Order: sequence, then C-alpha cells, then structure tokens
Amino acid sequence: MGARLIAIYRVRSDASSILQRARAIAVEQSVEMPVAAITDASVLTDIVGQVEAIEPAPDGAASDGVFTVRIGLSAATVGRDAGQLVNMLFGNTSLHDDVVLDDVVLPDEIAGAFPGPRHGLQALRQRVGAGPRALTCSALKPQGLPPRALADLARQFADGGVDYIKDDHGLADQAYSPFAARAEAIAAALAPYRATTRYAPSLSGDLDTMRRQLGVAAAAGIDAVLVAPMIAGLANFAALVRDHPGIAFLAHPALAGASRIAPPLLLGKLFRLLGADATVFPNHGGRFGYSPETCRALARAALADWHGLRPCVPVPAGGMTRDRVGEMLDFYGRDIMLLIGGGLLQARDNLTAETAAFVAEVKSHG
Amino acid sequence: MGARLIAIYRVRSDASSILQRARAIAVEQSVEMPVAAITDASVLTDIVGQVEAIEPAPDGAASDGVFTVRIGLSAATVGRDAGQLVNMLFGNTSLHDDVVLDDVVLPDEIAGAFPGPRHGLQALRQRVGAGPRALTCSALKPQGLPPRALADLARQFADGGVDYIKDDHGLADQAYSPFAARAEAIAAALAPYRATTRYAPSLSGDLDTMRRQLGVAAAAGIDAVLVAPMIAGLANFAALVRDHPGIAFLAHPALAGASRIAPPLLLGKLFRLLGADATVFPNHGGRFGYSPETCRALARAALADWHGLRPCVPVPAGGMTRDRVGEMLDFYGRDIMLLIGGGLLQARDNLTAETAAFVAEVKSHG
Repeated sequence: MGARLIAIYRVRSDASSILQRARAIAVEQSVEMPVAAITDASVLTDIVGQVEAIEPAPDGAASDGVFTVRIGLSAATVGRDAGQLVNMLFGNTSLHDDVVLDDVVLPDEIAGAFPGPRHGLQALRQRVGAGPRALTCSALKPQGLPPRALADLARQFADGGVDYIKDDHGLADQAYSPFAARAEAIAAALAPYRATTRYAPSLSGDLDTMRRQLGVAAAAGIDAVLVAPMIAGLANFAALVRDHPGIAFLAHPALAGASRIAPPLLLGKLFRLLGADATVFPNHGGRFGYSPETCRALARAALADWHGLRPCVPVPAGGMTRDRVGEMLDFYGRDIMLLIGGGLLQARDNLTAETAAFVAEVKSHG
Repeated sequence: MGARLIAIYRVRSDASSILQRARAIAVEQSVEMPVAAITDASVLTDIVGQVEAIEPAPDGAASDGVFTVRIGLSAATVGRDAGQLVNMLFGNTSLHDDVVLDDVVLPDEIAGAFPGPRHGLQALRQRVGAGPRALTCSALKPQGLPPRALADLARQFADGGVDYIKDDHGLADQAYSPFAARAEAIAAALAPYRATTRYAPSLSGDLDTMRRQLGVAAAAGIDAVLVAPMIAGLANFAALVRDHPGIAFLAHPALAGASRIAPPLLLGKLFRLLGADATVFPNHGGRFGYSPETCRALARAALADWHGLRPCVPVPAGGMTRDRVGEMLDFYGRDIMLLIGGGLLQARDNLTAETAAFVAEVKSHG
C-alpha cells in the first residue's frame, strides 16, 4: 500500500452518527461512490479513504457534537499538483456545512513535490538590510489613484524607511492604473531606495497575464510580488513560484474564506508549502474576526520546522495602527512583518513622518 | 460617475449596528482604507463603495439579525478580469464570518466582458440528438482504476445509451491513470457511439497543463471537458473558454463551498457568465445539504434570461439514484441533465442494463 496523507477535519455531529459521517467523508474525498460497488482490489486497499481516528475536538466537548476526524487519503491520488491536493483534501467536502478542514499531515513524497519558500524570512531581511528585527510594510491605496499618485505615496513611505511596500490587493490592471504603467512608475520612484525598501506589485488575471506582469515587473527591477492564491488557483500560484526563483512571493488571503479551511492550515502551512515567502492575514482585534489563538497558530505554522521548508514571514494586517506595534511585537515576537496601510495613510501630509515613527518604534522595540 | 455593479450580501448583525457594518463592507470591498484619509475627489465619488440599501433579509426576520445589504461598486475596478470580479465582490469580505455573498447585479459593460456559454442547453442536446427532453449523464469512477478499466465502464454506459459521460472530478493526471492515456482510451472506446454519447474528461493542474490536456482531448476527437473553476481560478477558467470555442465546458463545484458564496450565484450565475455550458451541483436529498429552494434557485439562475446569455444546463447530482428520476424531472422540468454515477455503478455486471433503464425512464417521463 502506498503512502497516505492525513486530512484532519472538525465535524459537527452527534456522537451516535460520527462514525458513519466520518466514513462518508472518507469515501467522498476518495472514490466518491458506494464502496460495495468497487470491484478492483487495489482500489479498495490503496485508494479508498480510511478513517484513522475520531475523537472529541479539544475545544468542543463531545456533548457539543464537534469531533476531530483523521482520514487517510492515498498520496498517489494527488501526485505533484497543488490543485489536486486541495481537491483531495476538501473539494466536495467543502460543500458540506458541517465540516471544517482543520489540518493535514503530509508524507514526504507530497511535501517534497512543492518547493516551499525560495527566500523566506532570512532573505527578506537581508534584501532590506534589516538584521534580526521585525520587518515593516505598508500598502499603496486607495485603488482609483493613477500611477503617478501611487508612486508619490511610495516615495513618501520609502523616505520614512519602511522595508516593504505592497500594492493594495484591489490594484489590478484597471484602465485608470494599468499594471505596467503603475509598476514602472513605482519602481522608478523607489530606485534610489533599493538598499532599504522593496516593492511588491499585485498580480491579477489568468496565469498568462500574471506571467506577463511578472515580466514587466522583473524588467523594472522589481523582485517581489503579491498574489492571492485562492483567486489565482493554487496550481497557478505554484507554477509562478516554480518558474520565477528570483522573485519573492507575498500571499494575500483574498477569497480564502472565514471559516471552512482553518486559517493556520491554509494561510500558514499550505501557502508556505507552495512557495509563499510571506503570508498576509487579518490580525486579531482589527477589522476581521480572527481570534488571538488563530493568529498565533497561523504565525507558528508559517515559521515552524516543517519538512525542511524555509520559514514564511507572518504578516498580520487589517486595520493595524501604530499604537499596536509594541503589543504585536510582544505577541508575535520579531519573526514577523508588521503591515500598517490605512493607519499610516491617515496622516496625509505627514505620511513620511508617520512612517518614520512606525519604523522607529519597530526598530527600538525590546 | 461610471457604472456600478451591485453586490448583495446577507449580513448577520443587530439592527443598531447594521448601517455601520454595511458601510464597513462598502469600504472593505473598494478602497480598503479610512475614507477620511482619501484626498482624491474622483476616488471619493467614483471608487469608494456605496451602501445602496439595507433591509431585513426575506427569510430572516430583522429580529433574528440578518439583513440584505446592497453595495454599489465601481465597474472600472473590475475591468474584464474574472479573478478581479470575485476579488471585488468578496475578496476580503470572505474572511468575515458574518457575511454571505448572496447575489450580484451587473452593468452591461461587465456582463459583456464575458462570453457566457458558447454552446449551452440547445447545443448539448443537439450533439447527442436528444430533442427537447432532459439529458442524461454518468461518471467514470472510482479513481484508482487504470485507463482500460475506465474505458470499459464508458463503453457499458454508452451501450446503455447515456448522453454524456464525465470523469469523476477526482480523476486528474495520476501515475496509475495519466490524463492522456485515459482520454485517448476512452475516446477510442466511445468512437462508435459518437451520434448518441459524448465524453468529458476532467482537467487538472495549472493553466498550461489544462491547455495541454485540452489539446490531447481535442486531438482524440473529444469536444467537452469538466473543470472545477474554484480550483482552477476563475480567470483561468474564463481563459480556457475564450481560447476553445468548440469545446463544451461542464463546471464542477469542487471547493466552491469554502468561500460562502450563495450557490445560485456562484454555480448558477457566475460559472455561466464565465462560460459554463453545464453546471454540476449537489441535489437536495442526496449526500449534500442543499435545500430544495437552493437547488431550484440555482437551476433557475443557470437557465433564466440574463444579459442575453445562452442557458447553462443544470446538472443536479451527488448520490442520485434511479428511483428519484421521476421526482427530479417533476421538480426541475426537462431543461436539465440528470447525473447518476455511483447509483448506476452499483449494478456492477448489469451496468449496461441499469443505464438503459435510467435512460428509458428519462425518455418516457411526462
């Protein structure tokens, strides 16, 4: 029998039904047909999903009816395709309201099929001469501004000494700010700051379009990009990483959904596995509802020793402000990138000074 | 001011907070920064999302705290990119537990950017000489079988007279059944049945891989494929449709549940808009939890007059059986494709007869 990956689900069920429900998930995520109708012996032994364990979920008493279910799935069904990985883990079961995909244990043959971060935490620090401190980041917005106005904002951020500047993930290839014109204008504005500040434009469109945008960016001297893997499709994100080893990839959580795939798994482990050098996620206490525990688990998943992958930089964001810098560094430690976007832009004419104050606070912390 | 699309959300909120919550969604899905920090007048008038209406949700009394919120978003922010369309509709807001994307009203300039079905209901009927009756479909599985065994199943389905045979969506490009070997074996097996039965293999991988698979399929005489747009990425699905006008596209819902978009919108309207000729979805009363109302709304969305698009064939599936044929045809009418997979395969040695009985029931109904 070949290697198996273990998909770990949280299933809402009463205790008397959970074994039947777990077996149904094992079938749904593998052969997707009545097992009694399968005549091939190797399919029955190698391919049909197996219920490996069922236990009450740690944070939901069995009386509440939430169980942790471990299902073994054939690694041979996945091959080396990131799209097929998520299809096997959660394709049909995502349509069931009573199941969350909580975690996964991968055999080496699947983990080894994906590169993980090509750069990761240490390289992102080195690029901007940061040393072992937390990194800083801000965002170019609002969408609707022309390239020149965005480039002007970028210059002010760079004057303030921020390490990374990313496009707002809503910036695409709009008529009022085409990708090429924007990337080139901002790259030109930031050229004098290359030792200390780097820019990550946001890619959009189909895989061909993203590749063209990457070509434009690379020609302008840009060496980092922002991609939303759930919009791009996981296999396409993996292809971009594979084909552009010199580029750092920041993953954006757009369309990642609030509650059906656990954020530490999707934004921490899986995006990292496919090659995210940094992963943006909603910090607790901001505009989104992630709990401190979710955020801590996500950051740990992105950084922990796992299949020999380089650490992926956690980037908590979403309504962050300068007055939270100290608290966030205490919470996450220094292996992190702090992203404050709108909170800096609110300073308007004092954007450079506000950015400099943010950067100084990060550098002076602890 | 330019054209706007209207995103319609269902928001869980108490009545005293809903206006503030609606405004926050309008900002999140547009400029994603404090409006007070925006200095550009055209951004304020054209780009910032606008709360158009708030009312108690029809099926949730206001006392329950569920509201329907209509947000106007600038069409200029979307352009002609399907990925950016879903990003603007639900990118960040998918991360909020209290919001479901329920529906969308598109201006003609966005609807016109996408082709809709190139074939649709009438052409799928004509291909198999069906006339104005319901179409029939079955699925090749379990995964794990080699190409020869799958081709043998296909031949039995075709002997039974089924209209369409699709790959199980778990069939990818696995070592035990590579895409090319599988598609060629099944196409060869089905060549004698071309007047009455067509085959749709399942595409997987990144966009390049899907294109190669389409090339292999087309060379083997295949003129339909199955794609899971949420795994492929919507922009990549749209690109495949755009570049292959002779191919019929069956959309599969895998991973569609992860992002909390109402099924009638995502599987009905949006997949159709991007070019799905048929859309597979979980029928009520099967292995999945969709309600009869959801299924009816989905089928109507796929078929209704909408921006001049051809009708997309609803394909209710997921644990269907022969004994439900009459009930389903009464429920949906004849503008439909009935998909029974495992329910036929359970017949094992009598697969051809079971398929023929299924087909006869559909043909003789009402």
